[in-house]
Amino acid sequence: MSTRRVAILGGGNIADKNHIPALRQLAERVEVVAVCSRDLSKARTLADKHGIPHAFANTADLYAQARPDVVVICTPNLLHYSQTMEALANNCHVFCEKPPAITAQQAQEMADLAERSNLMLGYNFQLRQSAEFALLRRCQADGLLGDIYHIKAHFLRRRGIPGWGYFTDKAMQGGGALIDLGVHVLDLALCALGYPSPNQVVGNTYDFIGKAGGKGLLGQWNPQTFEVDDAAVAYLKFPNKASIMLSASFALNMEAEKDRNLDFFGTKGGVRLFPFSLHTELAGELADIRFPHLEEIDIQLKNTAAFLDACDGLPSSVCTGRQGAILQRIIERIYQSAEE
Amino acid sequence: MSTRRVAILGGGNIADKNHIPALRQLAERVEVVAVCSRDLSKARTLADKHGIPHAFANTADLYAQARPDVVVICTPNLLHYSQTMEALANNCHVFCEKPPAITAQQAQEMADLAERSNLMLGYNFQLRQSAEFALLRRCQADGLLGDIYHIKAHFLRRRGIPGWGYFTDKAMQGGGALIDLGVHVLDLALCALGYPSPNQVVGNTYDFIGKAGGKGLLGQWNPQTFEVDDAAVAYLKFPNKASIMLSASFALNMEAEKDRNLDFFGTKGGVRLFPFSLHTELAGELADIRFPHLEEIDIQLKNTAAFLDACDGLPSSVCTGRQGAILQRIIERIYQSAEE
Amino acid sequence: MSTRRVAILGGGNIADKNHIPALRQLAERVEVVAVCSRDLSKARTLADKHGIPHAFANTADLYAQARPDVVVICTPNLLHYSQTMEALANNCHVFCEKPPAITAQQAQEMADLAERSNLMLGYNFQLRQSAEFALLRRCQADGLLGDIYHIKAHFLRRRGIPGWGYFTDKAMQGGGALIDLGVHVLDLALCALGYPSPNQVVGNTYDFIGKAGGKGLLGQWNPQTFEVDDAAVAYLKFPNKASIMLSASFALNMEAEKDRNLDFFGTKGGVRLFPFSLHTELAGELADIRFPHLEEIDIQLKNTAAFLDACDGLPSSVCTGRQGAILQRIIERIYQSAEE
Amino acid sequence: MSTRRVAILGGGNIADKNHIPALRQLAERVEVVAVCSRDLSKARTLADKHGIPHAFANTADLYAQARPDVVVICTPNLLHYSQTMEALANNCHVFCEKPPAITAQQAQEMADLAERSNLMLGYNFQLRQSAEFALLRRCQADGLLGDIYHIKAHFLRRRGIPGWGYFTDKAMQGGGALIDLGVHVLDLALCALGYPSPNQVVGNTYDFIGKAGGKGLLGQWNPQTFEVDDAAVAYLKFPNKASIMLSASFALNMEAEKDRNLDFFGTKGGVRLFPFSLHTELAGELADIRFPHLEEIDIQLKNTAAFLDACDGLPSSVCTGRQGAILQRIIERIYQSAEE
Amino acid sequence: MSTRRVAILGGGNIADKNHIPALRQLAERVEVVAVCSRDLSKARTLADKHGIPHAFANTADLYAQARPDVVVICTPNLLHYSQTMEALANNCHVFCEKPPAITAQQAQEMADLAERSNLMLGYNFQLRQSAEFALLRRCQADGLLGDIYHIKAHFLRRRGIPGWGYFTDKAMQGGGALIDLGVHVLDLALCALGYPSPNQVVGNTYDFIGKAGGKGLLGQWNPQTFEVDDAAVAYLKFPNKASIMLSASFALNMEAEKDRNLDFFGTKGGVRLFPFSLHTELAGELADIRFPHLEEIDIQLKNTAAFLDACDGLPSSVCTGRQGAILQRIIERIYQSAEE
Amino acid sequence: MSTRRVAILGGGNIADKNHIPALRQLAERVEVVAVCSRDLSKARTLADKHGIPHAFANTADLYAQARPDVVVICTPNLLHYSQTMEALANNCHVFCEKPPAITAQQAQEMADLAERSNLMLGYNFQLRQSAEFALLRRCQADGLLGDIYHIKAHFLRRRGIPGWGYFTDKAMQGGGALIDLGVHVLDLALCALGYPSPNQVVGNTYDFIGKAGGKGLLGQWNPQTFEVDDAAVAYLKFPNKASIMLSASFALNMEAEKDRNLDFFGTKGGVRLFPFSLHTELAGELADIRFPHLEEIDIQLKNTAAFLDACDGLPSSVCTGRQGAILQRIIERIYQSAEE
Repeated sequence: MSTRRVAILGGGNIADKNHIPALRQLAERVEVVAVCSRDLSKARTLADKHGIPHAFANTADLYAQARPDVVVICTPNLLHYSQTMEALANNCHVFCEKPPAITAQQAQEMADLAERSNLMLGYNFQLRQSAEFALLRRCQADGLLGDIYHIKAHFLRRRGIPGWGYFTDKAMQGGGALIDLGVHVLDLALCALGYPSPNQVVGNTYDFIGKAGGKGLLGQWNPQTFEVDDAAVAYLKFPNKASIMLSASFALNMEAEKDRNLDFFGTKGGVRLFPFSLHTELAGELADIRFPHLEEIDIQLKNTAAFLDACDGLPSSVCTGRQGAILQRIIERIYQSAEE
Repeated sequence: MSTRRVAILGGGNIADKNHIPALRQLAERVEVVAVCSRDLSKARTLADKHGIPHAFANTADLYAQARPDVVVICTPNLLHYSQTMEALANNCHVFCEKPPAITAQQAQEMADLAERSNLMLGYNFQLRQSAEFALLRRCQADGLLGDIYHIKAHFLRRRGIPGWGYFTDKAMQGGGALIDLGVHVLDLALCALGYPSPNQVVGNTYDFIGKAGGKGLLGQWNPQTFEVDDAAVAYLKFPNKASIMLSASFALNMEAEKDRNLDFFGTKGGVRLFPFSLHTELAGELADIRFPHLEEIDIQLKNTAAFLDACDGLPSSVCTGRQGAILQRIIERIYQSAEE
Repeated sequence: MSTRRVAILGGGNIADKNHIPALRQLAERVEVVAVCSRDLSKARTLADKHGIPHAFANTADLYAQARPDVVVICTPNLLHYSQTMEALANNCHVFCEKPPAITAQQAQEMADLAERSNLMLGYNFQLRQSAEFALLRRCQADGLLGDIYHIKAHFLRRRGIPGWGYFTDKAMQGGGALIDLGVHVLDLALCALGYPSPNQVVGNTYDFIGKAGGKGLLGQWNPQTFEVDDAAVAYLKFPNKASIMLSASFALNMEAEKDRNLDFFGTKGGVRLFPFSLHTELAGELADIRFPHLEEIDIQLKNTAAFLDACDGLPSSVCTGRQGAILQRIIERIYQSAEE
Repeated sequence: MSTRRVAILGGGNIADKNHIPALRQLAERVEVVAVCSRDLSKARTLADKHGIPHAFANTADLYAQARPDVVVICTPNLLHYSQTMEALANNCHVFCEKPPAITAQQAQEMADLAERSNLMLGYNFQLRQSAEFALLRRCQADGLLGDIYHIKAHFLRRRGIPGWGYFTDKAMQGGGALIDLGVHVLDLALCALGYPSPNQVVGNTYDFIGKAGGKGLLGQWNPQTFEVDDAAVAYLKFPNKASIMLSASFALNMEAEKDRNLDFFGTKGGVRLFPFSLHTELAGELADIRFPHLEEIDIQLKNTAAFLDACDGLPSSVCTGRQGAILQRIIERIYQSAEE
Repeated sequence: MSTRRVAILGGGNIADKNHIPALRQLAERVEVVAVCSRDLSKARTLADKHGIPHAFANTADLYAQARPDVVVICTPNLLHYSQTMEALANNCHVFCEKPPAITAQQAQEMADLAERSNLMLGYNFQLRQSAEFALLRRCQADGLLGDIYHIKAHFLRRRGIPGWGYFTDKAMQGGGALIDLGVHVLDLALCALGYPSPNQVVGNTYDFIGKAGGKGLLGQWNPQTFEVDDAAVAYLKFPNKASIMLSASFALNMEAEKDRNLDFFGTKGGVRLFPFSLHTELAGELADIRFPHLEEIDIQLKNTAAFLDACDGLPSSVCTGRQGAILQRIIERIYQSAEE
Repeated sequence: MSTRRVAILGGGNIADKNHIPALRQLAERVEVVAVCSRDLSKARTLADKHGIPHAFANTADLYAQARPDVVVICTPNLLHYSQTMEALANNCHVFCEKPPAITAQQAQEMADLAERSNLMLGYNFQLRQSAEFALLRRCQADGLLGDIYHIKAHFLRRRGIPGWGYFTDKAMQGGGALIDLGVHVLDLALCALGYPSPNQVVGNTYDFIGKAGGKGLLGQWNPQTFEVDDAAVAYLKFPNKASIMLSASFALNMEAEKDRNLDFFGTKGGVRLFPFSLHTELAGELADIRFPHLEEIDIQLKNTAAFLDACDGLPSSVCTGRQGAILQRIIERIYQSAEE
């Protein structure tokens, strides 16, 4: 099989540090042929740094000249929708950064078009490839958990409002802590449940600290221009009675600098994901099981490979367009609930 | 002021170990004059043990002969309503065990009658008197937290389904983990918010482990007769946008044998209750504050005293009939939501 | 079934603190009818203290007058043989303190006579009843360990030569650390292997510290009269290739004051006994399993009950006369090997 | 004194990473003149990397052309014997990797020929040069331990069967965990006792896990071709009553990933080697002594220098041919005992 | 030898809990014949409780009627001088609570009169009898420390101003933290140096917290009546160049609730007293030595026995009148220095 | 403003690793124009390494040819005085390494001349710029400590006598541990008090270990040529009753390898500097406050910048000539007191 031709949209950090290095390690399967950024000098610098032949300032030229098979979208959230639709229209598979889009409607259209076009649309939720989540899935498969009926998922930072980029700009990002951090753990929780659609979604969002200002631990944000949620909480109910408690924050008055974790409660066993531990009964006694030798994994490399597997029609653990649409709908419902 | 005459309804552990010893330490304010239990021998044994003059098998005799001013209700949940109404009708102040009742309607009637009768109705949520919650209230008063906008409250046991009593009997108790354990932390959470009524309540209840059976850590329960929730989760939204995430369990596949805690997130500071720590900014830096010398408190004694203060018209931190009605309504709405 | 009549031989600590309290908790199954000690006043004091009707200074009177069904032997090791033989001859079941005897020949005769007489002979190795060893046996039964092929067993004290009793008197005890401490862990190791006879036994014994003197942590011993092994090590090979490494000490220049443990290495899993942990593979990963809620057990009570079960012909985990003979033969071979 | 001319046999890791760097740091005493490997390109690559003038594909050419004074043997165990004999015949001192050889007879011949030839034969047991073992020897010299009478020595891995090289090939290696890992700690134990020959050696070897397969922590081994011991245990008795308990494993169901240690028990004090601690009596009390500032040592550099000292007739702590023969004889007896 | 007749002056806690129980355990050497307290009922109660034959309200009657050989003084500091002088005049040995007196002049007179009268005057500094200080003295004797040239001694409390007794009353006590707590560690420091007189004494005292008020951890003191030092620091130089840094506090803004320790720095080794550790060089390396099995000691019993030894003319480690005079002079000089 | 021209005196480590890198990071404010060292080749090497245009062997040439505005003095203590005086005479601001000089008289003259010349003289006490000390100052400013009345300051090493340089040479250094290490913490202590002059200074110095020899942890020193204090202790009293306890050591028989800390005791709160913690009362309870996110600071860079601020007439936290004179006077008084 010949290698696929990959084009990168966006010239920022996530392209430079995550996607391009992963793609280059997969040189037997893909060739990165072009970088595209509105700021052409940025595109060129990146291309030169990684030995990529072409750099473009607009996608029209890109599709015309570089004829990619695959497009990797590393631009601000606002652009995910239009760029994905265009890429699909140009007959490319799409590997898009999270979150899928700004609105549920967009994510739905993206999934629909990909399916109609018989093209792969995947989202880059790399935590799925972590050793811990992979082990959770194996434990589920081996029946060690029974049925999962409740999940607590949180991704909290104490003062982690980023002091750079668009993170506090509502138009560009579509939201704050929920859409940037919360989506990661929500994706895992949904995945463990089989990605069902909830029948009930309620939640709240807050912005007290973001708007008041304070000591920044990820650079210093500007409270004057802070427009998004610095914290969000939500509760999801599913048709089979399962439920998820979700919380996410950029800023919260808590002790830990960062606290990201999930607890999965099943009928036979429960799992705390980080560090992984399994709690069940064994030999008639309550047992706590630890796995001391989980391997460190390059989760970006593994997720990119999983996306390529999906393009090849192989079984894959990558987040699909369909799943992304379900996720985006939930995010939207949480934000709506917060407005009620 | 002469001492009040107190009668005890119920001859079980909670009367013997909690209420009577507390009342006896308050001998300057109260005299315990009678114990009443359907099982007269139980009543008599208890009365003899504690030097209480009278024992009765029914409340009619009790009111006729012992003429109490105060009634302390230590009977199964099912009886709280009728016994409180009767006590109020007999012109007694009432100090009732938690939860207030089985239904919201009952709790409402109880509060209404008490108010109409100008009598005190108090519920025995002793955690309010803990050094930690008292300090939280002082920190709130000193402005160290700003406004609290989110609270996580949980009271979880891994395998703590009691192997005795009525705890798994739905008719007698009205429910399981939620109504027995969850109420404690819910009361504290509501208290910290000023005891508002939520505009939205959703939740779920589960009984997988209770019905399947397993290793009991509080005696061995019988899965055949298990009728209640072994776990419950809920989400509450309030008119001012504040929210509470609540969870309670008798049985859950988790690591800790017992995990009871509350996190209060405020605009200026946050508090984890057990052990108490305060997280805020000070001198331009993020600061974690601990209070290493909190006193051990006899919380039953203090709560009984607080109830008596309320009877005397003094300021009091005891849970009132009005608050109990709000609380009971929330419990009912969670159980209803779980059925949807 | 009527209760059995039990007589106690020996008026020392082990009768007073271990056996008699256990027997009295089993009052539905046994009645302690007599205590016998060469020092009649000791016997009488003990009998009075525990409400036992008779006290004797010799066994002849005991058998003649008290007509016991069961004899519990709590005398120095030297007397185990003759008193057991006499008891069996008087048609009594025998529950004898460890070690079985002084020589292998004695233990063999004791087992033979018991079997010929259809009487139960049991030895009091209580560690068999510990929650940890019971769980090991259940794990074995559930196949969690596969086949055990190597065991490390040690019972070591840094300066624990007892400063009282006969512990350093070779004639009375038959040896030192090996026969007093080593037997406990050796019994567990053999039990886990199915109590096979080894085809090879080698070992050494030492008495350097015992004879040189030093700081005593269990009272102060007298180096002048020290006659036994203060340390012993041995290696056992079994026909199925399994092996045991055994070590025991009263005194050894090590850090811990006391170190008693066993490691069981099986084809599928391994167990460290104290605190219990199981090491295996699960879901394709190396897994460490802990059981955080093992119950505290009154191991003497449970072992006495197990002995009575055996008397009743029920399945029992008590050490039998046959096993005791195998154990004693190993002890003898270790001492012999040490002399070579 | 002019520098010695050194030739390296073997072009693998141990030559590249250990021996050649050490020899180059000793440039005042030695000059590395040649590398020899059956695979000439490997030899050449290594020579070029380290600036060594000559590379050979066979030893005949090596001796003819490079005329070395010293030969360092870094080839598989199977070749140690023939290459050492040839080197000695060519009038070279020999510094040979451990273990000495495959059979005791070989090691004996090697030692005999070296002595007859007045040439130094040394084995590379570098742990002798560790700060801990050096301190043990000083403590022995200062009389802090008295006489050592028992040693526990183990070198255990949980799942450390190497997934590369000849480690599981019986013909090339002569054995598994015992001959590869066990020899290291056995050498230290024998050294501390003065390198006596034992009068009794018994032991067992196992291969259950190696043949069954499992999760590999040092690469993934192939159970199909696994031919050696994955675990070995042994017991050694010496004429002066001292004893050694030895165990080694590539794979064992234990908690630690790796556990390598020795305990030395002496009449006055005892030492645990890693981390070093000394347990004795001081000022009439039991005392534990730690040495918090032991230096990190380049043990290969120090052992190579010690070998060169021996070549120069200076006092040296390197393992000699004579000691290697004793060690090899013990290894052989353990493997024989395991077959009985 | 017949037992000595002991009289107790003072009816407070220290008599009841410390001295009388210790004396009663020494019944072979002493008989407690009388208690004397200005408050006769207190004296009588104490006498009855401990089976002491006589109780007096004044010392005149005591000496006339009870004819004691030994007087133990457990009264407020202010009375130590006059009661000691009177007791010596009545031909009694005196065992006096610490501190010796209020002024240096008093302590000097007390020592002089005792010596002139050939009577023993001892002070109750019990820490001298602690296992740790006794071990320090043995280590000194064994030469493990060389010569001690600097000592840091401190006895600090965070908020330990006693809420009862005379502790904050300058006239009755003579001072605060220094004279109540500091004397204990100063006595040990001086003892380790051979009880020399310093050639220079400087220091300061403070009372900021004591006078400002705050949270009391030993009851609640009254800042209105607080007259003494809540903290004191001092520096002592001795003719041989040795020096002591001393600090003591009832109240200080520090983390620990209580911190009492001494560091002894010697030419060969140094000791931290609690928990005892010795830091020196051994076998050419820096060594840290711990003594894990120091016995718990009843230091009051041992100090009372030491005092009786001194009365009997035996070697004794009790603090003598002569030493007490040196100590008191230092205390006075510190207070004077603080006024400069 | 044009950049200042900076010349470096001294070609050692402190110039190479500390001052020049800091100055180069401040390229907008300064240009390093010359290095001067008696050893011209050293000066040239340093200049080349850092791209500095000129190198000189004497200061006369330096001033004549390089015409600096600022001189940074990185030479041995003995030269600080003469080089500073010369630099001031040449109209240069001076940034001098600590300690200021050898004698108090020198430091006084240096300060006087600088003031008369309207030039800045600063000393390089970089710990002032540590996050911890800066936070202490902010806490003082916010009133969290009240008034500080006692400080314990120590900078102790167990065996840290440097094995290189002039550290043990009295003529070149002016002293040992006190003048090299003690000055750092003394400067901080004085700074926190407002840099008052003490009315009383007493102290001692020792050299037992330095002269006896031992294991060196910072290279191996030579006891034969050891001339300075290996330990020093001192006590300082100030007119406002505040006091400082100071200790410093190159070598002391203690457990820690290095122990450098300060405790500040104030009327409202106390601070331990490393790691920073604040102990006070809050909400009526004793509170311990930690600041978990203090930034790592390049303290040399910040102190150099502070010196430049001072040259520019801006507020600055650098140690001034006036403060240096006070400090040097205290050091001298301690050394004098030690001689008494």
